[in-house]
Amino acid sequence: MKNIFIIGAGLSTPCLIEYLTERSEEYNWKVTVGDISKEMVEKRLQDCPNGKAIAFDVFNDKQRAKYIREADLVISMLPARMHYLVAKACIRYKKDMVTASYVSNEVKEFHQQAKENGTILLNEIGLDPGIDHMSAMKVINELKESGAKLSAFRSSTGGLVAPKYDNNPWNYKFTWNPRNVVVAGQGGAQFISHGAYKYIPYHKVFTRSQRMHINGYGEFENYPNRDSLKYRTIYGLEDIPTIYRGTIRRPGFSKTWQTLVEIGATDDSFIVENSENMTYRDFINTFLRYEEELTVEQKFAKYVGLEDDSIFMYRLRWLGLFEDKKIELKNATPAQIMQKLLETKWKLDEDDKDMIVMQHRFDYELNGEQKILESSMAVEGQDSICTAMAITVGYPVAIASKLILTGEITSTGVKLPTTKDIYEPILKELESFGIKFTEKEIEE
Amino acid sequence: MKNIFIIGAGLSTPCLIEYLTERSEEYNWKVTVGDISKEMVEKRLQDCPNGKAIAFDVFNDKQRAKYIREADLVISMLPARMHYLVAKACIRYKKDMVTASYVSNEVKEFHQQAKENGTILLNEIGLDPGIDHMSAMKVINELKESGAKLSAFRSSTGGLVAPKYDNNPWNYKFTWNPRNVVVAGQGGAQFISHGAYKYIPYHKVFTRSQRMHINGYGEFENYPNRDSLKYRTIYGLEDIPTIYRGTIRRPGFSKTWQTLVEIGATDDSFIVENSENMTYRDFINTFLRYEEELTVEQKFAKYVGLEDDSIFMYRLRWLGLFEDKKIELKNATPAQIMQKLLETKWKLDEDDKDMIVMQHRFDYELNGEQKILESSMAVEGQDSICTAMAITVGYPVAIASKLILTGEITSTGVKLPTTKDIYEPILKELESFGIKFTEKEIEE
Repeated sequence: MKNIFIIGAGLSTPCLIEYLTERSEEYNWKVTVGDISKEMVEKRLQDCPNGKAIAFDVFNDKQRAKYIREADLVISMLPARMHYLVAKACIRYKKDMVTASYVSNEVKEFHQQAKENGTILLNEIGLDPGIDHMSAMKVINELKESGAKLSAFRSSTGGLVAPKYDNNPWNYKFTWNPRNVVVAGQGGAQFISHGAYKYIPYHKVFTRSQRMHINGYGEFENYPNRDSLKYRTIYGLEDIPTIYRGTIRRPGFSKTWQTLVEIGATDDSFIVENSENMTYRDFINTFLRYEEELTVEQKFAKYVGLEDDSIFMYRLRWLGLFEDKKIELKNATPAQIMQKLLETKWKLDEDDKDMIVMQHRFDYELNGEQKILESSMAVEGQDSICTAMAITVGYPVAIASKLILTGEITSTGVKLPTTKDIYEPILKELESFGIKFTEKEIEE
Repeated sequence: MKNIFIIGAGLSTPCLIEYLTERSEEYNWKVTVGDISKEMVEKRLQDCPNGKAIAFDVFNDKQRAKYIREADLVISMLPARMHYLVAKACIRYKKDMVTASYVSNEVKEFHQQAKENGTILLNEIGLDPGIDHMSAMKVINELKESGAKLSAFRSSTGGLVAPKYDNNPWNYKFTWNPRNVVVAGQGGAQFISHGAYKYIPYHKVFTRSQRMHINGYGEFENYPNRDSLKYRTIYGLEDIPTIYRGTIRRPGFSKTWQTLVEIGATDDSFIVENSENMTYRDFINTFLRYEEELTVEQKFAKYVGLEDDSIFMYRLRWLGLFEDKKIELKNATPAQIMQKLLETKWKLDEDDKDMIVMQHRFDYELNGEQKILESSMAVEGQDSICTAMAITVGYPVAIASKLILTGEITSTGVKLPTTKDIYEPILKELESFGIKFTEKEIEE
């Protein structure tokens, strides 16, 4: 019997927990799930009779040591900054570990020790990072093996509302952490285009979006992510002339959001004086000029260069930004005020389902010909628990864990799923859960 | 005999040192000037036979204690963050102190002790802060005494090149710290307009400039300063519906500079990869889209919404921003790259003279009538030592020091020059040095 210890029972864990508990008899596993809230674990385990719920505090040294020592494999679904504690204990007690988060520099330091232990610390095996690495590396390696020379790699991912429930003028609802959406892009963006570095300051990020098409789902756009450069090393594309990573939204989102960035309404660096007694209309007016003869709407449209009757202004009006409704939020930053408003307007309704879309584009030369390959994926959520996010984060983690326990993944050290021995069996099994990439040659 | 101890012999001190040493026999003063560089002091004292030069390190506890204990009045012309050490010693040894810098919260804490000592720590008695406080408070108090009700106070200051030497298309040269000019506005701006708070993010600051006129000097513009709000309390204008502080430039400066802010060329938050081998043209191109069919100039103009043959593009071309000249600066931020270029292009030539301009505008109601009063000042530099900056910073400090030593200023505690007993005699004597405000009623 092997012991699996899952730490964290948050929103991205239901499919993971279900997958492992469902197979626990077949594989002779004992699955223990710990969370600071035992109630949360019990909720997750309601339909999973073979799991054991415990209250677990990762900062409790004794408890951390006890449960990790007893486990054969530890899955950390905690917030990224807490993985280090878990990794350290896994090294100490020579246990395998799996996480869906970006690997930190501190965890990277354990590489040699994990190798010596004969264990694996597998990181970045969720959706993004995770499925993006695996699906991109599969194509990159296939192209390289065929003798192709890559000239450009572009990759974008987005969490959106599924088409059937896409019924607001932004074609967007929050499917994950709202704050991250409100402050998205605040570090600016960096990528490489045709051999030249490109630096985009925050206030220009949403002006740099590009259109894209995903078969069966129609038109989208993507705006540049903070750092595309590090993927050169991770993917072995050190000399590629173009590398770009983006976030996917429906068309028009970026241009509309840009107006809020431009006036300063997403700023998170200062407190708006008297915010609790302001209305949203007052709030917007704080960023605009004093012009007695114009309405706030007219001043806004003029300031950001929009027509007052444009679809963009319609979307902003629809949010209630120009309404005389009190904000009722004390000592709030502009970003916090926007978040409060958006959480009511971009709320995923009870019966709404989310959707994950991902697309890679590879430009390459093969036998003297320039070609473009697109590899796309779309996954819709099943219900409010098995969301597309929970599916696409949970299954890769679950499958990887199984493959480690069964000995099908034998790599050791601190790893990402960028090598064939890891991504090939995982991608294959993911297809049985509807997580499948479609490849297509396209014309420029 | 009274001992005056001046700490710091930098660019803003020559007029100050000259004023006090010239009067040292008449008033029976001994003037000691200390600087980390004794050479610098000796240079300043060349034509001032009555001053004594010493090498002085403010961080040397023993030396600090010795010289401050021996002094009757200490003038700190050190960088602002070092005043605290001097103030602390002045409190301990019960000495008067004068500085031209913004008073820090730490120094404010000495108020009660200074009162008990019967000494004054007079701060913000240079140009800006300094002359701005005094000249504004004079008018504000006169208006209040006449029964006027102030509805708006706007105040702007600028350091520029004197008209005779104003011969570049930006109508601007560096007359002070270049770095401060390159990163100006990076905290955004806050002011109050017609009863409403206004928050301007950095990338909009230079779009919010306003035109102004100064008699005898022609047209200018001013862009909003970081924080106008604190002047409400300082000037006793707590309920004023409009309060604004700006920085003065010649017309067109802001709109042109804005294009550099907009593309991200003044960013100081990241290092440009391979900056030493880049040309300025490459540098500008890192912020622009890849568009094969357009030149860098054309892409720039399109990106920021300018005509390629406009005066704005002419100013940018004149800087050499589009030239294939190597930057030769390692691991530099965009702001550092811009600074290096601008230091060659906006350099004040040997024979050039600088200029300080300041203007306050007061909107008020008196006897049922709406009126506007403008109070303006312009001072040109005399030579490369007695610059307008040295004149306008040095004389207020010098005169205030004299008035404290002669007992004409009797206030005690931590003070700003916002009360009549301080500003009246200083403003009066400043006129004899050509620092004079002209008041004028204007129409809206």
